[in-house]
Amino acid sequence: MDYKRLSKAQLEKELLLQQSRYDKYKAMGLSLDMTRGKPCAAQLKLSEPMLDQALLDDYTSESGTDCRNYGIVAGLPEARRFMGELLGVPGDNIICGGNSSLNMMYDTISAFMMFGVSNDEADRPWFEDKDRKFICPVPGYDRHFAVTELFGFKLIPVDINPDGPDMDEIERIVRDDPSVKGMWSVPKYSNPTGYVYSDECIRRLARMKCAAPDFRIFWDDAYTIHFFNDSPAEQLNLYNECVKAGNPDRTIMFGSTSKITFPGAGIAALAADKRTIDFLLSRISKQTIGPDKLNQLRHVKFLKDLNGVVAHMKKHAEIMKPKFDAVQDVFVSEFDAPVEGQLQWTEPEGGYFICCRTGEGMAAQVLEMCKQCGVAFTPAGSTHPYKKDPTDSYVRIAPSYPEIEQIRSAVEIFCICVKIALIKQLLER
Amino acid sequence: MDYKRLSKAQLEKELLLQQSRYDKYKAMGLSLDMTRGKPCAAQLKLSEPMLDQALLDDYTSESGTDCRNYGIVAGLPEARRFMGELLGVPGDNIICGGNSSLNMMYDTISAFMMFGVSNDEADRPWFEDKDRKFICPVPGYDRHFAVTELFGFKLIPVDINPDGPDMDEIERIVRDDPSVKGMWSVPKYSNPTGYVYSDECIRRLARMKCAAPDFRIFWDDAYTIHFFNDSPAEQLNLYNECVKAGNPDRTIMFGSTSKITFPGAGIAALAADKRTIDFLLSRISKQTIGPDKLNQLRHVKFLKDLNGVVAHMKKHAEIMKPKFDAVQDVFVSEFDAPVEGQLQWTEPEGGYFICCRTGEGMAAQVLEMCKQCGVAFTPAGSTHPYKKDPTDSYVRIAPSYPEIEQIRSAVEIFCICVKIALIKQLLER
Repeated sequence: MDYKRLSKAQLEKELLLQQSRYDKYKAMGLSLDMTRGKPCAAQLKLSEPMLDQALLDDYTSESGTDCRNYGIVAGLPEARRFMGELLGVPGDNIICGGNSSLNMMYDTISAFMMFGVSNDEADRPWFEDKDRKFICPVPGYDRHFAVTELFGFKLIPVDINPDGPDMDEIERIVRDDPSVKGMWSVPKYSNPTGYVYSDECIRRLARMKCAAPDFRIFWDDAYTIHFFNDSPAEQLNLYNECVKAGNPDRTIMFGSTSKITFPGAGIAALAADKRTIDFLLSRISKQTIGPDKLNQLRHVKFLKDLNGVVAHMKKHAEIMKPKFDAVQDVFVSEFDAPVEGQLQWTEPEGGYFICCRTGEGMAAQVLEMCKQCGVAFTPAGSTHPYKKDPTDSYVRIAPSYPEIEQIRSAVEIFCICVKIALIKQLLER
Repeated sequence: MDYKRLSKAQLEKELLLQQSRYDKYKAMGLSLDMTRGKPCAAQLKLSEPMLDQALLDDYTSESGTDCRNYGIVAGLPEARRFMGELLGVPGDNIICGGNSSLNMMYDTISAFMMFGVSNDEADRPWFEDKDRKFICPVPGYDRHFAVTELFGFKLIPVDINPDGPDMDEIERIVRDDPSVKGMWSVPKYSNPTGYVYSDECIRRLARMKCAAPDFRIFWDDAYTIHFFNDSPAEQLNLYNECVKAGNPDRTIMFGSTSKITFPGAGIAALAADKRTIDFLLSRISKQTIGPDKLNQLRHVKFLKDLNGVVAHMKKHAEIMKPKFDAVQDVFVSEFDAPVEGQLQWTEPEGGYFICCRTGEGMAAQVLEMCKQCGVAFTPAGSTHPYKKDPTDSYVRIAPSYPEIEQIRSAVEIFCICVKIALIKQLLER
């Protein structure tokens, strides 16, 4: 239904209908949480066998290291190889750390801020550039933006399209300004759109001319094998493309098993060229004697390799796909099809989120109405730098954690609120 | 035996004797490692029951949080309470993190460098002070010194005595120079001396006048319950004394279970006043979504509380004490008693190290001779800032990891090398 074509009388009738639906839900006193991309209990259960003590055998690594004791600052060789398979690089290009890839991103930015991007004198600490800037594809991930905001970067939003961020715009921004030091990316099943960067986009990122020799792409490949259908989307490897383009140190890639095994007790890793790895290890070796190697060992013994992960992720997909399908079902049954200025939504084939767009200036009030009805979504604006969406239209839907019936109710309530806000706006004209 | 009283002929005879002992050992082709304070296999075995999956029950915390999932950035409340018992503060004053307290020290210094010691505008980032300095009690812990060296502090050595660092000297240094930003400390069973700071020393640290309002004592209470005899040494709590003295934010205290359970897979924590905790959490909440809560849960379920830890540490003591006794036995049988300029050694009642002092200018050559004989000790100089001991006399002995017979051989070889170096020096006069 296109509400803009309705007469005033039709709109008023429709408003009464939607308001009665809303009131009925409100009277139910619901409490539904659609705020964060958390795996649900059934997903966590899939990795329970990983916690079996017997899996650890005699606690030694392939090379005979006792994983209970000190050492191995870059992570167990087999854990580096394993995370390398996920990120598409050799184990030598991997540092395997603790339970949080966000922590590794923060620490990397922190090191670059304080010491520059390498041990080379010519690479000045980023903090010396008072005008430092960071590119933030929007809509994007609030925790990424928060890190660079904390470190005093000016955040430059660039629109993201179904095939990746607006590359013309990015090429223009990085070409002349040496204060543009980096860019965030979630390249596959992106947060929150679910978009997959195209190979062409990846080639252009690898090749583009940057005024800053220390420009770095923070490539958060968080959802690289989090597919819903038969297999993960194929995608060029950014690091390989950077090597081909003669810019091997342009990217640091990040990944974790947070949404493969346990968000609270997974393992994280970063991938980069040898020079960056050596530089980061020269810092990390001052920071710690080594990561939790028992947990790394657990993961390798349980998941084994990329094939093992893909098989495991199919089990996740069996749980996730019906939830994402439920969201699509409700949208289609409420709105038939996406209409600009009314409601648009993405249809991801993996990841943890669906991104919606209401009419401009409506997202905050819609989510407030949802909240009044007992349904919490990620706050409006979270998808943008400084938590300010200038269009006030983007909403992130996170359907992983609740049960399907809860998702149906939450999304239905959301649709009702969108309709009420839209009709009221049309009536006020 | 006091070698200085021997005649030339007696010395020459003694030299031949010691050299023949040395040659005999050398011919054995030994390979003994006394370099680091690592728990041995029998110690690691003590905590194996902690890895039993059944211990985790349904993976939920006291308050019902699923520890496998995201969240709880300051650590599980029961883990904070538990680590608070170890460090002598309430759980609210604790942040419980990952597996490495060194990592928490590094991150705290890094945060202070970049943002200052609080969210208060008046607290300027430490990096702005080009003349920043840090007090390093010597002999001390190489990894501490390395962190502040990396962040560009001038390291000021201050001698440590059996009752703690030279407080007259420290009070003098901090009184007038606002660039002196902090101080390292291992207050109980100190690394490498085994000394225990006296209550008087702790009171003076809490009360002393500091020119820098942002002067901070990094209190690494790594060995707080690592006693060998009946019970841990009693010691005033620095945080409590700082509160009494009206300087509640003067110290950040650190601890871990690295040498209680597993060095590679323990849990670490820091303790501080509420204002510092809030400041650090405002950073850490940008850095990570939360620590490994499953490992925190494991620890609390296994060790329960301070009483549980003390009982567990008695089992460690049964393994450690004979090793420390063996070192003392060899020293006494080789040298009768400590003699200045010849060989002195400490007799710790806890911790992981014994500190020796050779005559000045001899440590490096003694350790080189040991190395030629297949015995590795922590390199000479490691106990001092910039790895340079100006007296070239301090040697750290780490007896935890090898077997007792290996320790006996290693220490005997060390004593032989000390004697040879000493006699040669006396003969050259």
